Amino acid sequence: MEKQTAKEKTNKLDDLSVDLENYIANTIISQLYVDSDLKLRKFTLPAMEEFTLTPDDIDKDVHEVSDKIPFPTLVEHIKEAIETGNIFEKDIQTTDNRWFQMNILPYGIRKENRTDGVMITFIDITKRIVVVNELKQLNTQQYTLLNKLSHNLKQPISNIGLLADELVEAFDKKDTEQFTTWIEILRTASGRMNKIIEDFTDKI
Amino acid sequence: MEKQTAKEKTNKLDDLSVDLENYIANTIISQLYVDSDLKLRKFTLPAMEEFTLTPDDIDKDVHEVSDKIPFPTLVEHIKEAIETGNIFEKDIQTTDNRWFQMNILPYGIRKENRTDGVMITFIDITKRIVVVNELKQLNTQQYTLLNKLSHNLKQPISNIGLLADELVEAFDKKDTEQFTTWIEILRTASGRMNKIIEDFTDKI
Repeated sequence: MEKQTAKEKTNKLDDLSVDLENYIANTIISQLYVDSDLKLRKFTLPAMEEFTLTPDDIDKDVHEVSDKIPFPTLVEHIKEAIETGNIFEKDIQTTDNRWFQMNILPYGIRKENRTDGVMITFIDITKRIVVVNELKQLNTQQYTLLNKLSHNLKQPISNIGLLADELVEAFDKKDTEQFTTWIEILRTASGRMNKIIEDFTDKI
Repeated sequence: MEKQTAKEKTNKLDDLSVDLENYIANTIISQLYVDSDLKLRKFTLPAMEEFTLTPDDIDKDVHEVSDKIPFPTLVEHIKEAIETGNIFEKDIQTTDNRWFQMNILPYGIRKENRTDGVMITFIDITKRIVVVNELKQLNTQQYTLLNKLSHNLKQPISNIGLLADELVEAFDKKDTEQFTTWIEILRTASGRMNKIIEDFTDKI
């Protein structure tokens, strides 16, 4: 009976071993598990590929592999999460200009009701950050264009009111020379404003 | 000797069981594992909370729990991924207006070199989608404002050139009444353009 139980358990062991192995191999998420002694204990297949880790890196001190993980402050954040027990989340940029949402979560050993180290999750958000940055850039361009347009038109438009006064005065005095001068200024202002609007229409 | 191996294995079994349990409990990622018979075999703690699953849901047909997962086409996508062996990725909106990046990945049984079912990963991207949508909205508003500004100014600006011709003609004819009319039109246009620019400056 005892032997059968052992055999059953052995079979179940194989199942669970395969389960865990498969689980770690089948996630699309890069995850590292670092224990409270700062030893790298487990990582998922995407983490292995992402950070060019090898099975030899298992059980190494995280300082030894930190050069493979392109976030200079990773070890500090791990230590802080272990010390404080706080969850840490940050969007980080790698040294090769990709972006990850990094979450550091104290790793709970459920049956013992304690934590041991941290689970670090990296979600590739490069594409999303690129979209946000492109939209921000477009906003800035539009804002600049709006400001430029209003700024460039403000002065000539407000001058036209003054020109109307000058034209009336020249008309009353029958001063042809003065009148011609103001008309020229009015035509120049009109041409300039037309040009600003046309250039602007080409841009949007 | 055989017995010792069994005992060792039994201990290792406990370790691995705890490992897998902890692993599933300690991820921040919602994941479901559905086998090729469409049975829900495993889920992580966040998936359990997200979709209000209970341990009773384990080994249920995915159709039975699909009402708990607010993506109407989930079962179809699972079937397709199982049939085709293709990876599926989509940003999906839940019925309560949150957003997830959903990845469906054929689940590889490594030692047997075959796949069995799929691993489904849900990453909450609500905050990121909200940012993108806000930026898009801002872009649309600015674009509308730019178009409105240029459209509203185009006509009065181009009229000023014509008004200059009319003013010259009235001046040459010494036609006070006509001249006064054109000056009034010029002042109205100037006032209108000033107003457009002022309203616009208030908005940005």
